Amino acid sequence: MSIVVQKFGGTSVTAEENIINVARKVIKTRSSGKDVVVVVSAMGKTTNTLLEMAHRINPNPYKRELDMLTSTGEQVSIALLTMAIQAQGYDAISFTGNQVGILTDNAYTKAKIIDIKKDRILKELSDGKIVVVAGFQGVTEDGEITTLGRGGSDTTAVALAAALKAEYCEIFTDVDGVFTADPNVVPEARKLHVVSYEEMLEMSSSGAKVLQLRSVEFGRMYKVLIHVRSTFNDEQGTWVIEEDERMEKAIISGVTYDKNQAKVTIYGLPDVPGIAARVFQTLADANINVDMIIQNVSKGEHSDISFTVDKEDLNQTLEVMGKVQNDLGATSVDFDKDIAKVSLVGAGMRTNPGVAASMFTALAESKINIEMISTSPIKISCVIRRDEVEKAIKSIHQKFELQKDMRSDEYVKRMK
Amino acid sequence: MSIVVQKFGGTSVTAEENIINVARKVIKTRSSGKDVVVVVSAMGKTTNTLLEMAHRINPNPYKRELDMLTSTGEQVSIALLTMAIQAQGYDAISFTGNQVGILTDNAYTKAKIIDIKKDRILKELSDGKIVVVAGFQGVTEDGEITTLGRGGSDTTAVALAAALKAEYCEIFTDVDGVFTADPNVVPEARKLHVVSYEEMLEMSSSGAKVLQLRSVEFGRMYKVLIHVRSTFNDEQGTWVIEEDERMEKAIISGVTYDKNQAKVTIYGLPDVPGIAARVFQTLADANINVDMIIQNVSKGEHSDISFTVDKEDLNQTLEVMGKVQNDLGATSVDFDKDIAKVSLVGAGMRTNPGVAASMFTALAESKINIEMISTSPIKISCVIRRDEVEKAIKSIHQKFELQKDMRSDEYVKRMK
Repeated sequence: MSIVVQKFGGTSVTAEENIINVARKVIKTRSSGKDVVVVVSAMGKTTNTLLEMAHRINPNPYKRELDMLTSTGEQVSIALLTMAIQAQGYDAISFTGNQVGILTDNAYTKAKIIDIKKDRILKELSDGKIVVVAGFQGVTEDGEITTLGRGGSDTTAVALAAALKAEYCEIFTDVDGVFTADPNVVPEARKLHVVSYEEMLEMSSSGAKVLQLRSVEFGRMYKVLIHVRSTFNDEQGTWVIEEDERMEKAIISGVTYDKNQAKVTIYGLPDVPGIAARVFQTLADANINVDMIIQNVSKGEHSDISFTVDKEDLNQTLEVMGKVQNDLGATSVDFDKDIAKVSLVGAGMRTNPGVAASMFTALAESKINIEMISTSPIKISCVIRRDEVEKAIKSIHQKFELQKDMRSDEYVKRMK
Repeated sequence: MSIVVQKFGGTSVTAEENIINVARKVIKTRSSGKDVVVVVSAMGKTTNTLLEMAHRINPNPYKRELDMLTSTGEQVSIALLTMAIQAQGYDAISFTGNQVGILTDNAYTKAKIIDIKKDRILKELSDGKIVVVAGFQGVTEDGEITTLGRGGSDTTAVALAAALKAEYCEIFTDVDGVFTADPNVVPEARKLHVVSYEEMLEMSSSGAKVLQLRSVEFGRMYKVLIHVRSTFNDEQGTWVIEEDERMEKAIISGVTYDKNQAKVTIYGLPDVPGIAARVFQTLADANINVDMIIQNVSKGEHSDISFTVDKEDLNQTLEVMGKVQNDLGATSVDFDKDIAKVSLVGAGMRTNPGVAASMFTALAESKINIEMISTSPIKISCVIRRDEVEKAIKSIHQKFELQKDMRSDEYVKRMK
């Protein structure tokens, strides 16, 4: 029998009625003749509530204890969902990350999956059970509990789908799929039927919260078909698949934003080889992800480096930089929390010059100043003031007429 | 360095301030030069809230899933308490039952501890850490999560104290110690300074909720000094110790009650050998604890058997009995939920006849009807109507003048 992995996020299980609704969806898939593995997140705002409590008790808690704490949220969900499935007469069994052997490294609060032991799951499936697995959590070789970071349940689901060679992996969420822009900002934003792993990677890394970045990486690496869809209706959502030569490529898939970044600038670094390497190695050692980097060689033998990090890593970044500042020979370290990043993503961009220019024009027409720029073959990102994000997104969406479902050839014709 | 085990119940950790208070107590003991292992329960009413949620989703949930669910409560507590200790500058580490190897059988919701692997705890203690262990929970050899039943954290604490050969085990709770009667019912009830394991066993099994029965059994078996005391002050509480020949024995230690029982009566059983054995073997197979048993051989070749079980086991008891009723040849099965048990406990009772008669007199003087009686060398229990419990306790406490701290010899003199 073919296996399907279905993942339900926190918004899918905010209350008891929702859990019963999820149980029905799972049973429907089981009844259609599939083996079903369900991955579930903590109910509603549980994780945030726990984190707030932790920070009131200790403003700077050990990450090991944070993972001990927050991993309970998913454990509650798996037990309740399993009971809900059983209440409807189907056999089911719940497992923690530890119990199914979701092995991770020991980078607490953002651990990476190293391996999944699938024997126990396959055994229970072959006994006819629906298997319910806690998302977001794993275990180290030493038996320490870890968590995979925000949205980690997506990664649990896709990694399980890869390990179990599932037919596909469905990510149920509170939106209908992946859109050309956040529909809350741009009401005319359009749902994409299909998006490639590469595009989804760029969109996830530039602020589209619909899928965790690492889950898309897993999907691409192991060729897992991912279907992002709504928990609250039966409509088709967005399929994330491999890019195909025959695929009609839209130049632009969407425009995204990320308000969760902060900019750090290190001033007066000596302009000698290896200095940038030392800055970013220090950050890597502290397990801090850096997004955009800009270096200005200016005043003679000195240079400034600016980079962006997740806001939640800002304090640690400043702490780490403070420690090595003298050692690096920098004059000062500064930060800015009021920034945001807007990004334009599209696989067709590669072969269509002029996209960057159009994007900058759209921003200029809205009198928005660009502070940093970074590009990839299928993405352009600009750092702007945080309070100008909505305006920026709207003007870019309009400039590229993303509300229209056009093929690239038509599009190129129109743009000429 | 000598090890002390300290256990804090749910009422000791209802809110964040309480957790910080508990952290202070623990640190005080650590600072006095002891190695400290802390056992902690779920915060306040967490376990009940989770159970209510479970029963709304599935009126008859699998016990495995109940344990998966409720064990999360203690995991939250250990993480938060550890953070609170760390916030005050002391090193600490939290462990689930699984992580420290509290091995149990697989009787979900009331598992028994089989073994404790102490290596990990000893290692962390020798590294100078305060070790915080989740109460109430364990793990089977197959890695399944189990819980030890109501009050199971007491058992975790005493079992750990036994395994670690601790100097003593402190049970912090919301009362000042063990009293001659529930002070809410009898305001003049007196705190006992010392009580023997045997007396404590009888008191726990007859409704005194201050210590879980199995924790006292562990204490007696492994000679663990237990100190029951209040979280909210620094007063000495009650020490539970081995009975000593030199000990001045009070005839009566206290009077307890249990409103949490139900009576089941099986009518018209054939009066043939082995029939009672079959009834109670059936219940034992279903892991149902039976407390009092009375058999009336009456109408010729038939007999009735009445017994009491915990109210929470009543539905399962009736179900099990319903299944075997025909097989046993019984005519009907009936139950009564409006009963309660009052018990008088005291090690001195053994050598002082007339205690039972005085107890029955006290009840008779208050016009309370006795429905079942059972005795042990150091206890007399009577089943009465549930709504007469307070009256019964008061009249017995008064009859035996338990508010006065008398030695047995004085006492016997007075009673004469």
